[in-house]
Amino acid sequence: MSWIYFFDLCGTAVFALTGALAAGRHRMDPFGVTVLAAVTAVGGGTIRDAIIGATPVFWLRDPNYVIVILATVLFTLIFIRRPRKVPQYTLPIADALGLALFTFIGAQKALSLGLNGMSAVIMGLITGVGGGIIRDVLCRQIPMVLRTEIYATASIIGGIAYTLSLQLGMNAKTAMWLSMLSALMLRLAAIRWHLSLPAFDLKTKRD
Amino acid sequence: MSWIYFFDLCGTAVFALTGALAAGRHRMDPFGVTVLAAVTAVGGGTIRDAIIGATPVFWLRDPNYVIVILATVLFTLIFIRRPRKVPQYTLPIADALGLALFTFIGAQKALSLGLNGMSAVIMGLITGVGGGIIRDVLCRQIPMVLRTEIYATASIIGGIAYTLSLQLGMNAKTAMWLSMLSALMLRLAAIRWHLSLPAFDLKTKRD
Amino acid sequence: MSWIYFFDLCGTAVFALTGALAAGRHRMDPFGVTVLAAVTAVGGGTIRDAIIGATPVFWLRDPNYVIVILATVLFTLIFIRRPRKVPQYTLPIADALGLALFTFIGAQKALSLGLNGMSAVIMGLITGVGGGIIRDVLCRQIPMVLRTEIYATASIIGGIAYTLSLQLGMNAKTAMWLSMLSALMLRLAAIRWHLSLPAFDLKTKRD
Repeated sequence: MSWIYFFDLCGTAVFALTGALAAGRHRMDPFGVTVLAAVTAVGGGTIRDAIIGATPVFWLRDPNYVIVILATVLFTLIFIRRPRKVPQYTLPIADALGLALFTFIGAQKALSLGLNGMSAVIMGLITGVGGGIIRDVLCRQIPMVLRTEIYATASIIGGIAYTLSLQLGMNAKTAMWLSMLSALMLRLAAIRWHLSLPAFDLKTKRD
Repeated sequence: MSWIYFFDLCGTAVFALTGALAAGRHRMDPFGVTVLAAVTAVGGGTIRDAIIGATPVFWLRDPNYVIVILATVLFTLIFIRRPRKVPQYTLPIADALGLALFTFIGAQKALSLGLNGMSAVIMGLITGVGGGIIRDVLCRQIPMVLRTEIYATASIIGGIAYTLSLQLGMNAKTAMWLSMLSALMLRLAAIRWHLSLPAFDLKTKRD
Repeated sequence: MSWIYFFDLCGTAVFALTGALAAGRHRMDPFGVTVLAAVTAVGGGTIRDAIIGATPVFWLRDPNYVIVILATVLFTLIFIRRPRKVPQYTLPIADALGLALFTFIGAQKALSLGLNGMSAVIMGLITGVGGGIIRDVLCRQIPMVLRTEIYATASIIGGIAYTLSLQLGMNAKTAMWLSMLSALMLRLAAIRWHLSLPAFDLKTKRD
């Protein structure tokens, strides 16, 4: 199923882009930019493969992932030189796309290795949010994954949609689209209308 | 030996609780709370299994860990809504209990896989402090593990107590209790009387 | 080839030293110092082994690495008590040496396991910079690896020098020296003359 592979490379490119743009906001040198783009793009999948035991991890067996990252970094360094030229929502939308793609990829890989549905949802989550968490930690920020409106939530919903669709007997392609569209739409809606779940707040004094 | 399994699930619950409470202090949404609770609870054991090569890691093979985490998060979200209602020492004591339990679990697992005593102590340490380190890094704090009074110390002592007891010919249950009680008592004493080892301090000017 | 093993232990010692000194700047207790020294010294190699699938990771199979770390920490705690006594460039030079040694070790290990040249360069980079990144994240700093003058760059050049030398038919020893000297010289030159590549900067307003 070459769609999966194609989407995986697309997700790699958009997450590499978000990593490279984050690096630019911290004035890193070109190789630092490459490192941050790479950990953002393949960090989640690397954790997934390491804890499943699918080693050597995917990008060590297929050079295309590294090539996509290098091409994305090169493109970013050459064409995106002025911050004002980057439209306001470029980064969040690219990030939402990567989240939806990687959530599906992770859940699909877990099921194909024989793990149960709950583990597949978690693997989708790790693949979808792992790279972004590492990117934010390296830039010394509390991961937006944990705080932003409906982020981990969108990934979990996408993973559940995929697992449930398959268990309800839908074919793989329908389940794939349902998974990716539910995660993407939910995240985009959250960005657009600033939706969020009520926060668990132990800081504010209320009594 | 089902005691080990029971203690492992208890440790998972108390560390999930510390993660969820930390999330509440950073106003995360319910799924962010779940993610932080989960990495705190299974982060150390996951690193342990990944570097030993015991993959897929433990919580992928046994859904009970994830169920315990979800139940703990649900409990926390529903019942712990006001910070003042949380008694002052709840978090440190729960944390000390988790530290003692996980130190023993990690050392026990390492020895059962045929690793040597020194590696078993280190595996106990990684299992005991790994999750808390990840929790603190994600909340952008220097891990209390590295700074607080007798924290890593308590875990190392607990691991040495377990390994040494077995080598001196004690039975597994005695060694287990010696390990957990030594780590727990040491950590609780440190909390109660603010005990600490002299810090290695290159910052303060002394000459 | 026992040179490799000897250099590996040397790199372990110098990185453990940088970790211990960083711990001293944050007033950690002796066991916290040991933990930070250890993750700095073996962090990169541990990530490398976990994602290659060479488990149990190297220091679990050979106790000498842990012994070298403990000896280095003991040495540091006893002899380096006053910050003014540490000459200004000690830390960066030790760090540069560790970077060069570990880059070579990582690339060599990857090639010996049959990975391709590009993966070998990345493995050299992960081994060389992984520990330092973890050290800086635990001390709540943006990793100097990503920001400092020609750091990741030096490691990548060292890895390329090694891989390319072997592919051009040089013997293993020549390739080893070329790799280590190119990374070391480049990094030392960057420290001495504050060389840096032009930063990718999306923060400064330019239009």
